Amino acid sequence: MKPLKVVTLGGGSGYTPELIDGFIKRHGELPVSEYWLVDIETGREKLEIVGKLAQRMVKKAGIAMTVHLTTDRQQALKDADFVTTQIRVGQLAARIQDEKIPLSYGVLGQETTGPGGFMKAQRTIPVLLEICKEMETLCPDAWLINFTNPAGIVTEAIEKHSKIKSLGICSGANSMMMDIAKAYGVGREAIDARIMGLNHLIYADRITLHGEDITADFIEKLAQGVSDNKLKNIPDIGLPAEFIRALKFYPLSYLKYFYLNKEMVEHELQELRNGGTRGERSLQIEKSLFEIYRNPQLCEKPPELSSRGGAYYSDTACSIISALYNNKKEVHVVNTANHGTTPDLPDDAVIETNAVIDKQGAHPLAYGRLPPRIRGLIQSVKAFEELTIEAAMTGDRHTALLALVAHPLVPSVEIAGNILKDYLAANRDFLPQYTDE
Amino acid sequence: MKPLKVVTLGGGSGYTPELIDGFIKRHGELPVSEYWLVDIETGREKLEIVGKLAQRMVKKAGIAMTVHLTTDRQQALKDADFVTTQIRVGQLAARIQDEKIPLSYGVLGQETTGPGGFMKAQRTIPVLLEICKEMETLCPDAWLINFTNPAGIVTEAIEKHSKIKSLGICSGANSMMMDIAKAYGVGREAIDARIMGLNHLIYADRITLHGEDITADFIEKLAQGVSDNKLKNIPDIGLPAEFIRALKFYPLSYLKYFYLNKEMVEHELQELRNGGTRGERSLQIEKSLFEIYRNPQLCEKPPELSSRGGAYYSDTACSIISALYNNKKEVHVVNTANHGTTPDLPDDAVIETNAVIDKQGAHPLAYGRLPPRIRGLIQSVKAFEELTIEAAMTGDRHTALLALVAHPLVPSVEIAGNILKDYLAANRDFLPQYTDE
Amino acid sequence: MKPLKVVTLGGGSGYTPELIDGFIKRHGELPVSEYWLVDIETGREKLEIVGKLAQRMVKKAGIAMTVHLTTDRQQALKDADFVTTQIRVGQLAARIQDEKIPLSYGVLGQETTGPGGFMKAQRTIPVLLEICKEMETLCPDAWLINFTNPAGIVTEAIEKHSKIKSLGICSGANSMMMDIAKAYGVGREAIDARIMGLNHLIYADRITLHGEDITADFIEKLAQGVSDNKLKNIPDIGLPAEFIRALKFYPLSYLKYFYLNKEMVEHELQELRNGGTRGERSLQIEKSLFEIYRNPQLCEKPPELSSRGGAYYSDTACSIISALYNNKKEVHVVNTANHGTTPDLPDDAVIETNAVIDKQGAHPLAYGRLPPRIRGLIQSVKAFEELTIEAAMTGDRHTALLALVAHPLVPSVEIAGNILKDYLAANRDFLPQYTDE
Amino acid sequence: MKPLKVVTLGGGSGYTPELIDGFIKRHGELPVSEYWLVDIETGREKLEIVGKLAQRMVKKAGIAMTVHLTTDRQQALKDADFVTTQIRVGQLAARIQDEKIPLSYGVLGQETTGPGGFMKAQRTIPVLLEICKEMETLCPDAWLINFTNPAGIVTEAIEKHSKIKSLGICSGANSMMMDIAKAYGVGREAIDARIMGLNHLIYADRITLHGEDITADFIEKLAQGVSDNKLKNIPDIGLPAEFIRALKFYPLSYLKYFYLNKEMVEHELQELRNGGTRGERSLQIEKSLFEIYRNPQLCEKPPELSSRGGAYYSDTACSIISALYNNKKEVHVVNTANHGTTPDLPDDAVIETNAVIDKQGAHPLAYGRLPPRIRGLIQSVKAFEELTIEAAMTGDRHTALLALVAHPLVPSVEIAGNILKDYLAANRDFLPQYTDE
Repeated sequence: MKPLKVVTLGGGSGYTPELIDGFIKRHGELPVSEYWLVDIETGREKLEIVGKLAQRMVKKAGIAMTVHLTTDRQQALKDADFVTTQIRVGQLAARIQDEKIPLSYGVLGQETTGPGGFMKAQRTIPVLLEICKEMETLCPDAWLINFTNPAGIVTEAIEKHSKIKSLGICSGANSMMMDIAKAYGVGREAIDARIMGLNHLIYADRITLHGEDITADFIEKLAQGVSDNKLKNIPDIGLPAEFIRALKFYPLSYLKYFYLNKEMVEHELQELRNGGTRGERSLQIEKSLFEIYRNPQLCEKPPELSSRGGAYYSDTACSIISALYNNKKEVHVVNTANHGTTPDLPDDAVIETNAVIDKQGAHPLAYGRLPPRIRGLIQSVKAFEELTIEAAMTGDRHTALLALVAHPLVPSVEIAGNILKDYLAANRDFLPQYTDE
Repeated sequence: MKPLKVVTLGGGSGYTPELIDGFIKRHGELPVSEYWLVDIETGREKLEIVGKLAQRMVKKAGIAMTVHLTTDRQQALKDADFVTTQIRVGQLAARIQDEKIPLSYGVLGQETTGPGGFMKAQRTIPVLLEICKEMETLCPDAWLINFTNPAGIVTEAIEKHSKIKSLGICSGANSMMMDIAKAYGVGREAIDARIMGLNHLIYADRITLHGEDITADFIEKLAQGVSDNKLKNIPDIGLPAEFIRALKFYPLSYLKYFYLNKEMVEHELQELRNGGTRGERSLQIEKSLFEIYRNPQLCEKPPELSSRGGAYYSDTACSIISALYNNKKEVHVVNTANHGTTPDLPDDAVIETNAVIDKQGAHPLAYGRLPPRIRGLIQSVKAFEELTIEAAMTGDRHTALLALVAHPLVPSVEIAGNILKDYLAANRDFLPQYTDE
Repeated sequence: MKPLKVVTLGGGSGYTPELIDGFIKRHGELPVSEYWLVDIETGREKLEIVGKLAQRMVKKAGIAMTVHLTTDRQQALKDADFVTTQIRVGQLAARIQDEKIPLSYGVLGQETTGPGGFMKAQRTIPVLLEICKEMETLCPDAWLINFTNPAGIVTEAIEKHSKIKSLGICSGANSMMMDIAKAYGVGREAIDARIMGLNHLIYADRITLHGEDITADFIEKLAQGVSDNKLKNIPDIGLPAEFIRALKFYPLSYLKYFYLNKEMVEHELQELRNGGTRGERSLQIEKSLFEIYRNPQLCEKPPELSSRGGAYYSDTACSIISALYNNKKEVHVVNTANHGTTPDLPDDAVIETNAVIDKQGAHPLAYGRLPPRIRGLIQSVKAFEELTIEAAMTGDRHTALLALVAHPLVPSVEIAGNILKDYLAANRDFLPQYTDE
Repeated sequence: MKPLKVVTLGGGSGYTPELIDGFIKRHGELPVSEYWLVDIETGREKLEIVGKLAQRMVKKAGIAMTVHLTTDRQQALKDADFVTTQIRVGQLAARIQDEKIPLSYGVLGQETTGPGGFMKAQRTIPVLLEICKEMETLCPDAWLINFTNPAGIVTEAIEKHSKIKSLGICSGANSMMMDIAKAYGVGREAIDARIMGLNHLIYADRITLHGEDITADFIEKLAQGVSDNKLKNIPDIGLPAEFIRALKFYPLSYLKYFYLNKEMVEHELQELRNGGTRGERSLQIEKSLFEIYRNPQLCEKPPELSSRGGAYYSDTACSIISALYNNKKEVHVVNTANHGTTPDLPDDAVIETNAVIDKQGAHPLAYGRLPPRIRGLIQSVKAFEELTIEAAMTGDRHTALLALVAHPLVPSVEIAGNILKDYLAANRDFLPQYTDE
């Protein structure tokens, strides 16, 4: 096995210690020799803090890995084998606006679901595609493992507009399977499920325990409240038991934003009055995390990190990178192009589903038709995503308006127009593609 | 040409004089010799009133057509050539409940769009399929021309569960083309357009004037408010000009229930406070219409009839029946099975689109892929329709709940559950398929 | 109605008097004021002969149309409204080679079916695309009505590689309907049928007489030999009665080259021994036709013309041009892009099927799935056509070999290689795209 | 792990020692405790010979497995976990007729490709479906692992007409990968490839060595004759180098029957003159094999067995059974329903392709569109297969004729009719579904 150069863009993120921890644990099978953390100038301080912690963690582990910190992205990308991204264009300040503007019109204000996902995509896609263009020169054979949200939309933009090999990664499916495992008192590896949908909009069925189908049993457990997919960052409002029984799928928690839209918006408005949006609380958590990271005695991932709701990212990412590197032919859940996996979505649409991962990439398992009880929602959100990508690539205001109108959670064209106007005004600095009219 | 037996079920409807008028005008090419108006026992009084008017109209016209009035459906159906339906199971009283129950939860209360369409389908589909079963014995080669709303859903139920040849008819597309003609000061026949969508959810493009494409020009007219598809029964709230320019399709007025959902619900709530729902006003209009019909001097369609918003039904229906009968190979807009017209909807889904009509039936024109700006909404409403039909056929409460949840205008599973509970309670007498749990 | 400029490329063809005759008969509805016959330098003599006849025919008819003869294609194309093509790159000499080379390996030698169609496409596609490029400058809104064989393949090449609006035309379907009409002793206009397939590979079902389905009855007539589609240019060997009954479609005569391949090849070899290929006989017929055309007393289409097997071309072409010009919304059989008409063929494949013709072009009627008894053959010939076009565009010998191998009538890769070698050698002058290796 | 009951129908086959050997080797992971060999009365002698050998092999291996020999199929099927089939309705005598009859008309006479596959399917499908019906009662949860040829067609018949879970198995893909491994001097496990097609009509691309793509390199090796897929039972005629380079796929040897049809038929006719068809030689080989099996000292698979061309069956079958039983989530090549794996074939068509195997069954990897250079042939053979199954289910002579006509290797409808007539006469005893006319 040849030594590996791995690069993480947005290396100053508070999640980085998770990733470092994952690479340390897997060093035997995934011999990362150079690990580059990259951030932009305004993130340099965070990069230094988290980077030093990373270096202490590696040192303590006693493995042959050097951790480099830089703001020179091109130097880092040169000859990389794997590039992971966890960037946040506009940082948490932009996210907070993404949340507050729709809420001011009574519409869901969330990081990835609803108008927030549209806005984050407009800022993020141009930056990611610039990165891809650099990779085409500096490391054309590298894999781009994209954590950056909205992960499905961003991966579809890369798929459509770049030749770089990429996969979109999310911990959502993994967290669902962990919850199932917990409900049955077994290890994660005993559980499997068939996943279908879009990022943050996935459904599980064909749930198995050591290969035996337990779907009906687990659905009843869900209905009775014995298990739930309580993601840390999603309000804990339960779906009605009869609906779960009717649905016969296990939906990711994010689907509550659709199925309980009214209640979720009320909850968000309540939270806003009580001290701030989720983004504002994240800002607080991040601050205290970095205080902890600064401690020069700390040489491992601190327990406080898991409180941010991305606990399984590291496992998800590192195990997929290892499957690619080691040609493992394992089945993982990833965001990848449809290419006929289901005929109910366009061929070039990125979907989140089970795929065999080998050195050549992800090969999704044929799924066939979507049943109507999940089909309409998935299809309408995909139409929103397609328009969102087109708007991000062209900066066309008409397309941007159509994207927001196409979102099932936007209740009127008038409101869509207002949100768009406020969004474009607030994000002027991050939207080179939207020229003045 | 052999003489024709035509049967209208729901013959006591206030619209019947429109139909009679249409058959009288076309008697040369469509020689209806027996015309049977059928209604149920509770509709006998209205049947008598409207039937007598029909007989006076025919007599005045001096044509060889006998008008029969009966409550014996089977006698009427025997050897019929064409059967038209315009029934209203539960009459306007049921419609008013359909409207009021969702409104009580802040959700659109409309006859065909939103939860109202679901409820009307639950009452109507079993009756229509019973009629089809009778037709399979009494007039297996007859055409069923279905006006009964929700026309697309009902036609799909017939398509899936009966062998009777049927087409769903709506005046919507015709009214759009009339509006275009008006905007250009030309006759209806000079205008054409490509229609795609579902009943009450259609979009026009490739708009032509004497064959020349005027789509862009007409869209700009729409944006500037020079033209509008102001259906009598839909609140007159305009779509924003920029949205119309962005959409590049001419949407049927009913689409305002989706694009301006918030405003439309507010408007309905306002109207409810100011004297009643649309259904309640229809009840008033109907009463005064029947007062007029009673007049034994009246021997033609009274001008007051056009105030009910179905003015083009007669032309639409009679011209399609004539195209079938006379093997005309004309293009009309009808509700018929997709069968590959667009790959973005299931093959057995009923869609509303342009089709060549000849003696063998409707042959829709291949459309290809739907553009994303209209695709998501059409697909999600189709998923709702599919579940609605399955619920109506089985009486399964889980499927009924999933249908309401699938509707883009229902903002929460909780609310869907409440509406369903109230609906089933209020409609107990009309839902034999929903057995007590 | 504005006056019209029509251009016929390959104007020196012996078929031209048919076209002239068609335009003269339709001058009331299709007021062609300028008619340009264009040919290349080597065809100048034939152009003069046929052009003078055309001028005499127009003069006799006493209509306001001027007939221009030229070898300056660009002058002719300038501001044209309709351009028809009936060119033959390499003339009949090339056709005779197309026939003889495969026959020398015991493989069908036919103008459009089998290897011959491949070779004709290699010579023709580059020339047609050059014409399209000129049209894009000189008459970008003109319609290109393509008679040039292989008409389906050529039209698909234009569809894929040019923006010029085009339709492929063939008299095959028309001749089938004439035969049906003859079998029932009625006029052509009383008959209709649903056509599906590729050019020279079409099947008819849903055959109607005044709108009533007579398919089963006519199939039985066919089986009993009461009717047959005896095209002048196809050997008269009958299909077995049981096969016709099994097929339940009415196949175009050209399908005998597939269904009776062994017998047809034997027949061709026999004919070759007895005096020459079909191409060689055509050469004779053409010579005697031009002798007749030279007669300065002749001012109408001579009866001898119909002996060449293209008798319905004129009607087919002129009526389609008139439907386009007059926005007739009539159904005609044309070669046009699939675009979802049947999901069993690629979206951008050109198929031959029923389409509504209006000023905007051809709108095929949705067909749905192909039944397996005709599906495999159509699909495999389409794969051949796709590879044939790719080879003609690129001059890639590997693709050319794959095209010939893909043809169902080529019995071995070795033979395909030999035919290709001989073909490329014999056609060197007409294949600029095949560079020396 | 619970002990396992495995049943092999057609247990008297000469291949059975391969299977026994496979189960013995895998006894650790696949603890077969009861192994039932079943045959029909006329096969009793062979069953006894091979069954005794099996018992000696198990005894020598010293594992806890009992081998039962019976002609009572229902007793054997009761509570089985896995049922494998390797039956040959009509035995080798029928195969020899399958070969000779088409050859008498100059058409390929081969066991599975061409008319032979049609005829074998007519005899085999009714028997297999009878077995499935018994399984539905006696062991409804058992897996049916079908080796019986034509394996793809038979599996599709089961898929369409039975609820029994089944997979079709063939050693073809495995033998291709072994050949690749040999060409690179590596073990089989280092090689992988993407397989697409129908049974005995598969193509490999994305060929990898330790995960690195070596497709182009291996194709060049093939072209240069360094490697070949020389199946024992297929004449050793090489494909032309330029064709292999053009194809860019590695085709299974069986494809030579299509690509070199002329040469293969000549070769078969030559062999026929020189002492008999492949079936006749198989009869000889079988006889000598059974002589060897009789030897009471023999307690292992004799080396002579591998000379019959099915050497990898055992590995293929046992490893797939183990993957199902142990929920291994490994990728294997199997015959299973398309369900969207490629949109270029019907959804319910059985294809041969890579699939993840777990306890729930086979989950094929989405493949997307087929390139035209392999598409036409696969599609036309699939149409033949579909008609073959329909004929076998109904005994309809018209459908049977259409099936033979649809086969690309049958050169004329007349010949198809003659082959069919002779086939039905010769197989009268095995075709209960074909009633006398």
